Amino acid sequence: MVIILHQHIHEDDKSRLRNYLQDHGYRVKEIIGEEETIFGAVGPAVLDIRDVEVQPGVQRVIPISKPYKLASRELKQQDTVVSIGSVRIGGGRIALIAGPCSVESREQIMETARTVRDAGAVMLRGGAYKPRTSPYSFQGLGSEGLKYLREAGDAYGLPVVSEIVSPQHVDDMLAFVDMFQIGARNMQNFELLKAVGQTGMPVLLKRGLSARIEEWLMAAEYLMAHGTDNVVLCERGIRTFETYTRNSLDLSSIPVVKKLSHLPVIVDPSHATGIRENVMPMAMAGVSAGADGLMVEVHPDPDHAKSDGAQSLYPQQFEKLARDIEALCPVLHRELE
Amino acid sequence: MVIILHQHIHEDDKSRLRNYLQDHGYRVKEIIGEEETIFGAVGPAVLDIRDVEVQPGVQRVIPISKPYKLASRELKQQDTVVSIGSVRIGGGRIALIAGPCSVESREQIMETARTVRDAGAVMLRGGAYKPRTSPYSFQGLGSEGLKYLREAGDAYGLPVVSEIVSPQHVDDMLAFVDMFQIGARNMQNFELLKAVGQTGMPVLLKRGLSARIEEWLMAAEYLMAHGTDNVVLCERGIRTFETYTRNSLDLSSIPVVKKLSHLPVIVDPSHATGIRENVMPMAMAGVSAGADGLMVEVHPDPDHAKSDGAQSLYPQQFEKLARDIEALCPVLHRELE
Amino acid sequence: MVIILHQHIHEDDKSRLRNYLQDHGYRVKEIIGEEETIFGAVGPAVLDIRDVEVQPGVQRVIPISKPYKLASRELKQQDTVVSIGSVRIGGGRIALIAGPCSVESREQIMETARTVRDAGAVMLRGGAYKPRTSPYSFQGLGSEGLKYLREAGDAYGLPVVSEIVSPQHVDDMLAFVDMFQIGARNMQNFELLKAVGQTGMPVLLKRGLSARIEEWLMAAEYLMAHGTDNVVLCERGIRTFETYTRNSLDLSSIPVVKKLSHLPVIVDPSHATGIRENVMPMAMAGVSAGADGLMVEVHPDPDHAKSDGAQSLYPQQFEKLARDIEALCPVLHRELE
Amino acid sequence: MVIILHQHIHEDDKSRLRNYLQDHGYRVKEIIGEEETIFGAVGPAVLDIRDVEVQPGVQRVIPISKPYKLASRELKQQDTVVSIGSVRIGGGRIALIAGPCSVESREQIMETARTVRDAGAVMLRGGAYKPRTSPYSFQGLGSEGLKYLREAGDAYGLPVVSEIVSPQHVDDMLAFVDMFQIGARNMQNFELLKAVGQTGMPVLLKRGLSARIEEWLMAAEYLMAHGTDNVVLCERGIRTFETYTRNSLDLSSIPVVKKLSHLPVIVDPSHATGIRENVMPMAMAGVSAGADGLMVEVHPDPDHAKSDGAQSLYPQQFEKLARDIEALCPVLHRELE
Repeated sequence: MVIILHQHIHEDDKSRLRNYLQDHGYRVKEIIGEEETIFGAVGPAVLDIRDVEVQPGVQRVIPISKPYKLASRELKQQDTVVSIGSVRIGGGRIALIAGPCSVESREQIMETARTVRDAGAVMLRGGAYKPRTSPYSFQGLGSEGLKYLREAGDAYGLPVVSEIVSPQHVDDMLAFVDMFQIGARNMQNFELLKAVGQTGMPVLLKRGLSARIEEWLMAAEYLMAHGTDNVVLCERGIRTFETYTRNSLDLSSIPVVKKLSHLPVIVDPSHATGIRENVMPMAMAGVSAGADGLMVEVHPDPDHAKSDGAQSLYPQQFEKLARDIEALCPVLHRELE
Repeated sequence: MVIILHQHIHEDDKSRLRNYLQDHGYRVKEIIGEEETIFGAVGPAVLDIRDVEVQPGVQRVIPISKPYKLASRELKQQDTVVSIGSVRIGGGRIALIAGPCSVESREQIMETARTVRDAGAVMLRGGAYKPRTSPYSFQGLGSEGLKYLREAGDAYGLPVVSEIVSPQHVDDMLAFVDMFQIGARNMQNFELLKAVGQTGMPVLLKRGLSARIEEWLMAAEYLMAHGTDNVVLCERGIRTFETYTRNSLDLSSIPVVKKLSHLPVIVDPSHATGIRENVMPMAMAGVSAGADGLMVEVHPDPDHAKSDGAQSLYPQQFEKLARDIEALCPVLHRELE
Repeated sequence: MVIILHQHIHEDDKSRLRNYLQDHGYRVKEIIGEEETIFGAVGPAVLDIRDVEVQPGVQRVIPISKPYKLASRELKQQDTVVSIGSVRIGGGRIALIAGPCSVESREQIMETARTVRDAGAVMLRGGAYKPRTSPYSFQGLGSEGLKYLREAGDAYGLPVVSEIVSPQHVDDMLAFVDMFQIGARNMQNFELLKAVGQTGMPVLLKRGLSARIEEWLMAAEYLMAHGTDNVVLCERGIRTFETYTRNSLDLSSIPVVKKLSHLPVIVDPSHATGIRENVMPMAMAGVSAGADGLMVEVHPDPDHAKSDGAQSLYPQQFEKLARDIEALCPVLHRELE
Repeated sequence: MVIILHQHIHEDDKSRLRNYLQDHGYRVKEIIGEEETIFGAVGPAVLDIRDVEVQPGVQRVIPISKPYKLASRELKQQDTVVSIGSVRIGGGRIALIAGPCSVESREQIMETARTVRDAGAVMLRGGAYKPRTSPYSFQGLGSEGLKYLREAGDAYGLPVVSEIVSPQHVDDMLAFVDMFQIGARNMQNFELLKAVGQTGMPVLLKRGLSARIEEWLMAAEYLMAHGTDNVVLCERGIRTFETYTRNSLDLSSIPVVKKLSHLPVIVDPSHATGIRENVMPMAMAGVSAGADGLMVEVHPDPDHAKSDGAQSLYPQQFEKLARDIEALCPVLHRELE
C-alpha cells in the first residue's frame, strides 16, 4: 500500500507509523518529495487500509494489491474456458444462452427449448425461483419448474442454467441444473456464494446493480475460494441517474474485465434494457465490445408471459438475432459455439 | 395507471388496448388533448406496466398506485412505534443504539455494553455473522458471538440487535436476539426477508446501496407481508459517483420516507461515512433531519478492532455524542428515549 | 399532466384544484378508482409541475407532454440528415470524424488530416480552445489553432469541427469552422447554446456527464429554438459509481434517442474510455448499437501529445478501426459515408 | 505519483520508464514486494497520469499530489473568512442568505428584502439571468432585475448576490452585485470562472450536479488562480439514482471539504430538495453537519412565483427557520452572523 503523509507530520508519528507497519509484516520505504512524503509499504495485505488511514500524520492510503487473486489475470494468463456439458464458454467462441424468464409450464419450456435450439442457442435458461421486488408477484414454480426445465434440456440436448436464491435450495437444485445462476441482487449474498461455490459446479455470476468491477471480481473470488473454478461473469446493466432505460448496460466493463481477469464474460441484454426492441441492438453491441456470449430471454408467447414478457423476444426475433450474430462473428474474428 | 398513446395511434389499436385493459379488470377513461391522448386506467394492479408499454400505439405507461400497501402512510396515518423489550423506537423519541461492529470476545462486548449504557444508549448492537466483501477477511464469531452479545445485553439491561445473513440462521438466532438486522447488501435477498418476516420479530432494515426509496419500502413490505409489524428503517448511505466519502449519506430520504410511510427511520452514520471523525457531524445532521434514532459503532479499543475499527468511536467520543444529541433534542422538540 | 390526489382529499380542495387548472387553460377529467383518484389535465404546458404538486390534496404530478418539440420524433417522422459541406451525417450512413484532441502545430494537424483522410475519415476534428479541469493545464492555441485546422481541412478536403467554449468566440470561430462542437461540460451552458444556435450552423452536441436523455434533447431544443436545424448528438459516456473506467459509455441511450428524436447520434469512444486500448471495442460496439458515426481522437505521435495522448489512437490503429467498421457495415445493413 | 508495474515487466521497459520519468524531472524510487513492484515518483506534476499509464509494463498509476493548491488546507491552515460588505462568512458564524429565485418586480424584491432582513437574513439573493432547462421558460428580467435587487439591498442594508451566466455580463453586473454566484450547471464553465475570478470579487460557487469534491475544489482553484481570494462553496445536492427527491443533498461533503480546504461552505436546501416542506429539515441538518451558512429561497407569494415557487418558503416559514437555526447555534457552539 502507499501511504501519503501529512506535510507537517511529526518525526515521532512517522517512526510510530513505520513500526506499526513493520510489526504487521510490511517492508517500508520512504520517498521524500518537495510537496509530499510517502511511505511505500509492501507486505501481507492483512491490514484494513482505513486502520492505517486513521493513524496520526497519515493523509491518505492507497491500496495497490488487488484484493482478488484466483480471479485475476496475474494468476492465470490464458483465458478460462468454462465447460457445461459439451458447451464451452470463453476462448474466442460466442455462446448463445436463451429461454424464458420463468418456467411456466411443461409445454412452454419444451416449446421454447425446441425453438431456441433450432435457432442456434447452445444452452437453455429458465427461472424456477424468482426474486421479485414485490411480495405480491408470481414467485416461480419452484422445484416443479426445475423438473420441466431439466426435461426440456434433455429433450433437446441443451445444458440448463437456473437462478438460485437461497443456500437452502442447493441440494434440491443440484439434481436438475448444469449451471447455477447468481442474480444481480444476490451478488453480495455471501452465504449463497459460499454454498454455491462449495458444489464445484459452473456458475453464472451476474453483476450487481451497483457493483464496481472490483466487487464483481471479489464475488467471483468468493465462489472460487470455496471450490468452483468455473465462473462465467454476466454484465446486465448498472443503476445510474438515467431513468429512460431500466438500467445502463455498461459495455465498457467488458474490455476492462477481460484485462483484469481470465474469466469469460457474457452480456444479458434483456434485463439490461427491459424492453424487447432494445434487446437486439444491445446484443449486437455486447458481442462487438468483446463479450463471450449472450443470455437472452425468449418466450413462445410473450404477451401472456407470467414475468418479464415485455423484454422477451418472440421466437422469430431470436432467430433473426442469432443470424445477425452469426454474420457478425467473422468481422470480429470469432466463431459461434 | 396512466397510458400515454402515440399521437397517430390507429383506432383499431386503441380499441384493442381498451379491451385488453378491461379484460384484466381495469376501468378505462380517455382524455383527448391537443398534443396527446391518454388513457386513465384504474383497477386491480395485476399487470406489469411494461406489458402494457409494448402494446401497439402505446408511448409510455405511468404507474400511479404505490406498490407497497402495509408500509404506506395511506394505510396507517399515525406513526408506528416499534417496541423491543422496554425500548420504543418512533413517535418523537430519539433512540441511541450502539456497540461494536463485531462481537470479538466476551470481555470486549461486556465492556462496550457497560460503556454505551452509561453514556445513554438504550440498545446494544454487535455482529456475529459478518458479510465481508473479501472471503479472506474475518467472518465473525458466529453463534459464540451471539451468546456473548445476549449475556452483555442481559447484564446491562439492553435489548440486542444483530445482523442475520442466511435463512438457515433464523432458528439459531431467535434464541439470542431481540431484533434482527437486515444488512444493506441483503435488502433484496427476498428469501431472507421472507424467513425473517415469518418470525414476527422486530427488524432493523438497512437501505441497500443502490436502493430507491420505493424499493426500500417494498423490502419492508416483504417483511410485513410475511408476518412482522415491527420494522425500523435505517438510512446508511447510498452509492454515488463521489469517491472521497465511502457512501453518500442520503439524509433527504428521511423527510420523504416519513411522509410516505408510518415506519420509524434511524440513521447509521458509522457505515455511511466509514471514518470516525465524520460520524459525529453526520449523527447530528441525521437527527436534525428528522431521524428517530441512531445506530453508532463504538469499540473500547478501536485500534485493535477486528473489523471497521476506523469508523468506530472511542467510548469518550460516544459519550460526547450522546450529550450533544441530548442538547439537540429540545431544539427539535423531541426527547431522548 | 396527470395529478394523483390524496385518498382523503377534501371536496373543497378538489374543486379549488380543478378551478386552478382550468384558469391556466387546462381541460380536466377525473378518474375515480378504488384506491386512488386522478385528474387528467391536458392543456398548454405553462405550469411548472411542482407548482401543482404543492396544492392541497395533491399527492404527485406526472408530466406527460415531452418538454422538447423541435427535436422530437413526433414533429418529424423521418431521420434528419445533417450536411456539413459535402458530408452527410444520419440516414443510414456511418460517418468517421477523426483528429487530435488539440491542434498543437501546423505540422501536427496537417499530418493528422492526411492520415485520417487516407484511412477513411470524412471530417477533421481539433481543439483550439480547451476546457481543462485544471487552470494550470495547456489551454489550447486559440485562434492560431483554428487557422491551422482550417488550412488542414482545406488541404485534404475535410470539413472541420472544433469546440466552442464561450459566446465571445462565436464571431471569431465562424470564419474557421464548418461545425461547432458543444462539449459535455457546457451542455447546459444555455448562453452558449443560444449564441451558437443563432448562427444557424451545424452543431455537434455532446451529452453532459450527468445529463438524462431528456435534458440532452432539451439542450438540442435550445439550439433549434434559436436558429439551427442541424444538430448531431454525441454520446460520450456518463458519470456513474464505477471508477475503473473514466466514464460509462451509455450505449443503451442510442436506440432510445433514435426513437424519441429525428436527430442523428454519433459516439465518441475516446473520451468515453480515456484509454486507447478500449477505444476500438467501444467504437465497434457503438456502431453496432445503431450510432450514425464515430468521433475518434487520432494523433501522429500520441506519446508527445499536449493533451489526451493516452486516449489518442496511433495512425495505424485508426486505419485498422476504419477497416473494421467498413467490414461491420454490411452486417448492419448500413454503409460508410 | 505511484506507479504499479506489471508483475512480469521486462527490465528494458523498467529502465525506459525510469528514464522517461527522470527526463520529466521526477525523482524515482523502486519498491519491490512479493506480489508487486512499484515506482514512487515525486516531482513537478507536469505529466498527465494517463500518459504514464500507457507506458509498457505499467499496470496502474495513482496520483498523490492534490491538483488544487490555493484552495487547499495545506496552503492555509486557518479558516478563510469571506467579507461581503459588513457580512462575514466562515470562521464559526452561521450566515443566512435569503431571497426569491428570480427578481420579478421592484415591489416583490423590496418586500422580500424587508421580510428576510427582519427575520434575520444578512444577505439578499435574487436571480436576474436565469439558466432554465427549457428555452420556453421565463429567463429572468436581466439588468432591470439587477437594478431592483441593488435598490432593495441598499434599502435594507443587505449585500446582494446574483447568478452570472455569461462572461459577457461581467461588466454589467459589477455595478450591481456584491458577490457573484456561479450556478451548478456552470461549475465547469471555465471561461466564466476565469472572467469572474479576474474581477477579484467574492464568489459563491455551487457544486455541480455530478461534480466530485475534488472537481469542485478545482473550480474554486480556477477562480483563485485568476484573481479572487474570496470563494464561498455551496453544497446544493448531487445527481444520483434516487428519483423521489430532485437531488440528493450530500451533507457528508461538508466535513470532508472543511478538512481539505480552508474555504467556507454553505448549504442551499431549496434547490437540493425542490419542495418546500423538505427545506426546513435539510436546512437544520446542513447546519448540524457543519455548514457556515444557508442560502434559502423565500418569496412573498410563492403560489404566484415565476420560477421555483414550489421550493420557496413563505415568509413566516423563513422566520420560523431563522428562529430554529438561532436555537441550534449554541448546541453546535456557533453563533449567528
